[in-house]
Amino acid sequence: MISKDTKITIIGLGLLGGSYAQGLSEAGCQVTGIDIDPEAIQYAKEQGWITEGGPDPELVAGSGIVISALYPKTFIEWVGKYQHLFTSGTILTDVTGVKRNVIREINAILRPDVEYIAAHPMAGRESQGIHFADCTRFHQANYIIVPTAANTERAIQTARDIAEALKFRYIGILTPEEHDNMIGFVSQLSHVIAVSLMNVTDCTDLVKYTGDSFRDLTRIASINENLWPELFLQNQDYLLAEIDAFVKEMQDFRNLLEAEDVEGMKQKMITSTIRRKAFDVKP
Amino acid sequence: MISKDTKITIIGLGLLGGSYAQGLSEAGCQVTGIDIDPEAIQYAKEQGWITEGGPDPELVAGSGIVISALYPKTFIEWVGKYQHLFTSGTILTDVTGVKRNVIREINAILRPDVEYIAAHPMAGRESQGIHFADCTRFHQANYIIVPTAANTERAIQTARDIAEALKFRYIGILTPEEHDNMIGFVSQLSHVIAVSLMNVTDCTDLVKYTGDSFRDLTRIASINENLWPELFLQNQDYLLAEIDAFVKEMQDFRNLLEAEDVEGMKQKMITSTIRRKAFDVKP
Repeated sequence: MISKDTKITIIGLGLLGGSYAQGLSEAGCQVTGIDIDPEAIQYAKEQGWITEGGPDPELVAGSGIVISALYPKTFIEWVGKYQHLFTSGTILTDVTGVKRNVIREINAILRPDVEYIAAHPMAGRESQGIHFADCTRFHQANYIIVPTAANTERAIQTARDIAEALKFRYIGILTPEEHDNMIGFVSQLSHVIAVSLMNVTDCTDLVKYTGDSFRDLTRIASINENLWPELFLQNQDYLLAEIDAFVKEMQDFRNLLEAEDVEGMKQKMITSTIRRKAFDVKP
Repeated sequence: MISKDTKITIIGLGLLGGSYAQGLSEAGCQVTGIDIDPEAIQYAKEQGWITEGGPDPELVAGSGIVISALYPKTFIEWVGKYQHLFTSGTILTDVTGVKRNVIREINAILRPDVEYIAAHPMAGRESQGIHFADCTRFHQANYIIVPTAANTERAIQTARDIAEALKFRYIGILTPEEHDNMIGFVSQLSHVIAVSLMNVTDCTDLVKYTGDSFRDLTRIASINENLWPELFLQNQDYLLAEIDAFVKEMQDFRNLLEAEDVEGMKQKMITSTIRRKAFDVKP
């Protein structure tokens, strides 16, 4: 449980930061917002999601919990520049979608009297900005805590408290390597596939012939081009390996088709059908 | 308009044949069913979808319209074996998902006093068998008529009448080449991608971390392994070309990632986002 007296400061009131402010304020927490965009601050105040806010990094002073909802690189820069404003004992957490690099870089520079506990709310979507904030999306989403051996139980529990206050469906713990490996496959490879499928040819003239399958397959081709290249680069090694393995698999199938190997194609389909069944029931 | 006196015979009462029998009988048509499975015949009779039916090919006699809902190869074999039972002047149509080869093979053997008009109801799904038949699925689906230069207006109109009786959302006309090219991209390539994504690694332990994106992307990995290899082989040239183009596009993206070319990845994402917008509104 987060004490009602704990000052929680959210840095970056975009889609995720805004949703955090909304959900935490609804849970009775005392939320401060920092954003360079005055409109985002005004909107959050009007909605009653923050009690105070503005562009000034000094607002972070006195916070028991600081949540960065910035893009990974900006997060690292912000901490480098303003961490002297943190109150001693602050727990710092974040929302970035890739972890190994952020954890390494933050821990390399962070004051010893502030503790960073990495977390990833798996609830991204195509839209950007606080006007699309909607904390009810968390109720169907996963929250992954990504501790290192250096993290204390107090920090891990704080991340768990945040996830519980926001009512995430599932709270998990993974190592940084497990997390980034999983994200490389489940999220990043899927996005590369959807983006590539839309790039291979201008298929917009085929709209009237497409059914739900194609729409479902390509939904995530609508993507924030300012965020995702950065996320991909932060996970470059794993993502390259995933793309290479997938391309090899596509080529294997292609060769079965060229060889008219019906039995080989059947086996691939039997495997995919069996494995996909595991995903039919939502956890 | 199909006259109520026209005898319509459906060969093959599976998912699609059963849905046709249901929809056409509801539209007031007189439907006969032919299937080697006595249970499918019994079910169709119990539902009131056919007035007569059985395994005997001779049931086709006296039909004004014959609809094959068999797999492509079985369809061609059936016509070769039993077309002497057709009544002169019969319009023959079908539901197969690839067209150039079927059209060529049927027209090469068909009696000159029977006319084949190719058609493709784009309403497949993962489930098989008449118990999953549901003609309301057609109301959201496309029906493509695929005539050749040899087809008469009467035959094309008959296909259109069937589609209207079944209340398809959209009725289109494409050449066999246009149709197979479109299907190679919109449907077949998508299925190869989903099947390959599930084959590349056993990801069933990741179920609890997957959101809607991954589920949407892989839904069509549940696939009828007895039908699809046959459909792929019937469209081998186009599908190989689609796979090759897609793999090349994936490799292009991979190389941008390896070269840390943020601007190049951004451009791909901007293109995919713009093109995907065309699919946001259902036609």
